[in-house]
Amino acid sequence: MGTVAFVGLGNMGAPMARNLLSAGFKVQVYDVVTEMAQELGAFGAIPCASIEEVTRGADTVITMLPAGEHVRAVYLSDDGILDHVSGDTLLIDSSTIDPETARLVGQQAGGKGISFTDAPVSGGVAGAKAATLTFIVGGKEQDFSKAEQVLRHMGKNIFHAGDVGSGQMGKICNNLMLGILMSGTCEALNLGIDNGLDPKVLSNIMLQSSGRNWALELYNPCPGVMENAPASNQYQPGFMSKLMLKDLGLGLEAATKSQSSVPMGALARNLYAFHNMNGNEELDFSSLFEFYQSQSKS
Amino acid sequence: MGTVAFVGLGNMGAPMARNLLSAGFKVQVYDVVTEMAQELGAFGAIPCASIEEVTRGADTVITMLPAGEHVRAVYLSDDGILDHVSGDTLLIDSSTIDPETARLVGQQAGGKGISFTDAPVSGGVAGAKAATLTFIVGGKEQDFSKAEQVLRHMGKNIFHAGDVGSGQMGKICNNLMLGILMSGTCEALNLGIDNGLDPKVLSNIMLQSSGRNWALELYNPCPGVMENAPASNQYQPGFMSKLMLKDLGLGLEAATKSQSSVPMGALARNLYAFHNMNGNEELDFSSLFEFYQSQSKS
Amino acid sequence: MGTVAFVGLGNMGAPMARNLLSAGFKVQVYDVVTEMAQELGAFGAIPCASIEEVTRGADTVITMLPAGEHVRAVYLSDDGILDHVSGDTLLIDSSTIDPETARLVGQQAGGKGISFTDAPVSGGVAGAKAATLTFIVGGKEQDFSKAEQVLRHMGKNIFHAGDVGSGQMGKICNNLMLGILMSGTCEALNLGIDNGLDPKVLSNIMLQSSGRNWALELYNPCPGVMENAPASNQYQPGFMSKLMLKDLGLGLEAATKSQSSVPMGALARNLYAFHNMNGNEELDFSSLFEFYQSQSKS
Amino acid sequence: MGTVAFVGLGNMGAPMARNLLSAGFKVQVYDVVTEMAQELGAFGAIPCASIEEVTRGADTVITMLPAGEHVRAVYLSDDGILDHVSGDTLLIDSSTIDPETARLVGQQAGGKGISFTDAPVSGGVAGAKAATLTFIVGGKEQDFSKAEQVLRHMGKNIFHAGDVGSGQMGKICNNLMLGILMSGTCEALNLGIDNGLDPKVLSNIMLQSSGRNWALELYNPCPGVMENAPASNQYQPGFMSKLMLKDLGLGLEAATKSQSSVPMGALARNLYAFHNMNGNEELDFSSLFEFYQSQSKS
Repeated sequence: MGTVAFVGLGNMGAPMARNLLSAGFKVQVYDVVTEMAQELGAFGAIPCASIEEVTRGADTVITMLPAGEHVRAVYLSDDGILDHVSGDTLLIDSSTIDPETARLVGQQAGGKGISFTDAPVSGGVAGAKAATLTFIVGGKEQDFSKAEQVLRHMGKNIFHAGDVGSGQMGKICNNLMLGILMSGTCEALNLGIDNGLDPKVLSNIMLQSSGRNWALELYNPCPGVMENAPASNQYQPGFMSKLMLKDLGLGLEAATKSQSSVPMGALARNLYAFHNMNGNEELDFSSLFEFYQSQSKS
Repeated sequence: MGTVAFVGLGNMGAPMARNLLSAGFKVQVYDVVTEMAQELGAFGAIPCASIEEVTRGADTVITMLPAGEHVRAVYLSDDGILDHVSGDTLLIDSSTIDPETARLVGQQAGGKGISFTDAPVSGGVAGAKAATLTFIVGGKEQDFSKAEQVLRHMGKNIFHAGDVGSGQMGKICNNLMLGILMSGTCEALNLGIDNGLDPKVLSNIMLQSSGRNWALELYNPCPGVMENAPASNQYQPGFMSKLMLKDLGLGLEAATKSQSSVPMGALARNLYAFHNMNGNEELDFSSLFEFYQSQSKS
Repeated sequence: MGTVAFVGLGNMGAPMARNLLSAGFKVQVYDVVTEMAQELGAFGAIPCASIEEVTRGADTVITMLPAGEHVRAVYLSDDGILDHVSGDTLLIDSSTIDPETARLVGQQAGGKGISFTDAPVSGGVAGAKAATLTFIVGGKEQDFSKAEQVLRHMGKNIFHAGDVGSGQMGKICNNLMLGILMSGTCEALNLGIDNGLDPKVLSNIMLQSSGRNWALELYNPCPGVMENAPASNQYQPGFMSKLMLKDLGLGLEAATKSQSSVPMGALARNLYAFHNMNGNEELDFSSLFEFYQSQSKS
Repeated sequence: MGTVAFVGLGNMGAPMARNLLSAGFKVQVYDVVTEMAQELGAFGAIPCASIEEVTRGADTVITMLPAGEHVRAVYLSDDGILDHVSGDTLLIDSSTIDPETARLVGQQAGGKGISFTDAPVSGGVAGAKAATLTFIVGGKEQDFSKAEQVLRHMGKNIFHAGDVGSGQMGKICNNLMLGILMSGTCEALNLGIDNGLDPKVLSNIMLQSSGRNWALELYNPCPGVMENAPASNQYQPGFMSKLMLKDLGLGLEAATKSQSSVPMGALARNLYAFHNMNGNEELDFSSLFEFYQSQSKS
């Protein structure tokens, strides 16, 4: 199966690495927090102490990091990944970051004849554990094909969005849409409730009509309407409000750079900013419903 | 099958009345424009010259009118419907109007022992012709059951949303959601295009991810992505932008009265106000995409 | 000086009537709450028990009522003002209501040869007591001149905005602007504070730069910046948040009817809707600052 | 008077440097476009060919550059300003950029014992020529005092906003406010016009009421209302729409980083994004009025 170097072993990275181990890959692991690499040793991974060590002999390098600054540091700084790999290695960054950083790393890698793809995921920790993540991949057609051979052991849907950076853009666009869907669903349900409608009845009507959308189908934000949704479980995530705020922020940043108009996404971002700062940032993102409801209950 | 009085024979009313004729009802028809009643005579309807005449002997009265003021006039004015029907008659108003007017007519009718239901439709002229409309009905349980026996000959989905006025509220909430879905879908696609993504690829990714929604599935607003959508046919409606503006206006009016917060719906309403006044009000509501695009193409 | 009939003796109406008494007018007063008329008797007013009685012999009729429905009832219903006055009487409605109602009353009055003006006020209870109100008047030039002779005893600035209904529209436009000024001022100050600026320093900079506006000058929403502002006195009004919400609601209603785009005003309205429903509706409208701040303090 | 090094000699920088020459400073000038330095030679400036040369012997270095990336390059790169100046020199960056870059340069300078202040301006090319600019300065108290001795020869109002970076934040907050003032003023005037008000009359009413604001006072966006405003001169700037879009973008970026809520500013930014992309980016920023008006004229 080949050798994979895995850098970044947090809530997402660790279970993803374990799925590669289960699939039969040789997996070398590294994290700035040394214990995290050690822990994965128990499952067959090879803990490494440096970027140089973890990338040695690897066919594929996968990184899963918190933000663009970490990605730039890990790939581009002295003694970073680009200093230690050769043209045979495929680089895959699965962090969710700004497309500009992805393109910058891609260019620097390309300048050394090394293939780079950005491959952000959705599906959360649950998806990482169950190997059911969605990957949205940016990179050359042939690099995508090679990446897919590895990614399919960690995910279910693997999309090719375009050139390097397109993976990030694809995720940004989707999650901008999602933020709008959730805000709108909260708003429509709350308006109905304020005017005497039963949220179950209204949800059912919209699900079978032109108001149908992913948030309403799978994440109904009104407690009691959908048994298995976070809303019926004190808004335990799920997908945390702070991650939605981060993703909508990436959307605004991209729109600012391309001078695109994103009034709906910008408004959704600001609703989440209001909501989160009241101590709700670790709740599921469907808890935005309470921002609307608290209003109408006083 | 019984006798139906049908008042209001415009683009929607006329085909609805014809479907009742096809189903075997005796249908008495009336419109302020006399010719419209005459025309339906050719299909077996009985043209009438007044409210008094059209309601005589009718088991069910159906009204299909442009706005709340017409509904108030037809039901409540001297020589209006309430002056000419008795407690055996079921009244069904299928106009899309403000819930307050529906409740007012319902109360006045109730005061005379007459049953009233509000039953606005969605599905447009095509749905009216094909008898595939969706009806969202407000009224007492037993009145809903009786109404359903007639409505099912003109529509496919018939929902009971709650008491009188709830039909209008249900439609308002759904269409507020729809306005948000369409604005958001235009915005996400445009942001992707501005950043180098192929709209077909991005649409496909979002359809299989958490950005999925009715507008994206059935009404993709980007020309060329979906063959049968209005966007690929010069935005021939479909559902006209001016009707979307009207429905979002009803949403704002309802929210103003209930003091509910509807920032997303209000913003969508204002995007349509900008768009429509540039001469686009008769285009399909997915033409809002051009409002975003014209911007990025200059 | 002549005889004035004053209808509606609440927080605003009562002090306005007293100022007319002080100016030497004969003032006949009426309110549905009888005690209110009796109380003004102590100041020289003549308490009346009906619309017929209060308008008898009056040169001028002034009404000060809560909403459009009351204005319609008092002027247009059987035994209403229009049934009891003649062409010599000038009618002045100082309520803040929708322009449509003002125009409707104006037309009905005009049909009977009676002059009507709409003359909503700003300046609040304090302005009503101090006779420093601002009146924005709609009506014919000559009616405005006559109205001014009475209004100047209750106010300082008296504007002629245009035909009947224009008084309401002028106030609506001004208060839409004011809602935007206050929301924006809260937002700019909060953004500065979140980024380490001193609100006094920032306020001072903006006051002398292009951010200058009425809210910043006279109603600084940040506690401690301006000694005499409601913000430095637990947000005691001043101008209550619920009145701002009402006025912004009138703005949206007018925009819906004229199909105008009002995205900024609509957003400000929704921020006040969120804010008010958390129990802040009786606070001064500058308390919106807390809606922004509570967010950044958690 | 001392020696000033001036880097960046565009529309703003060149007249600023000339004002320093007029005041009696020895001025050494540099621009990547060599001709620009040559041209200033005619006015007594000393054209230089490199950062090293221009900074040699300077007491004060002033930079006036288009964006953050240029500031980082000019100060921080190899052979940049920080490589060539000593602790006696005061650095002043008058570019309008993100506060983060200002803080970064400030820290790097501080690490070498060199004083840095950020001092963005407002007042445009006209203000630069007339030496009436407003400077908003961030830096230590003593550095501010020293900077003021130079800046007062190029501007009229010089504010001390706080530590390094606060100059940028102060300008960002003010211009966010300004973007909101202009959008709101366009909107209120347009709503009035759509409802039959005369824009001159309405402007006059608002100017004397609570709608008063800088945009209405000095930059009335409706053609014909104010003789000297850009609106009455085909929207010749003034302050270009593209600069307003840039500044509102900086506001959103800052808010994203501090997780602040800026719904009004974000909406104003998106209105400008729509407006500019229709070919209006070089027009005065009050031309946003046409975005509202074109709607209501169709």
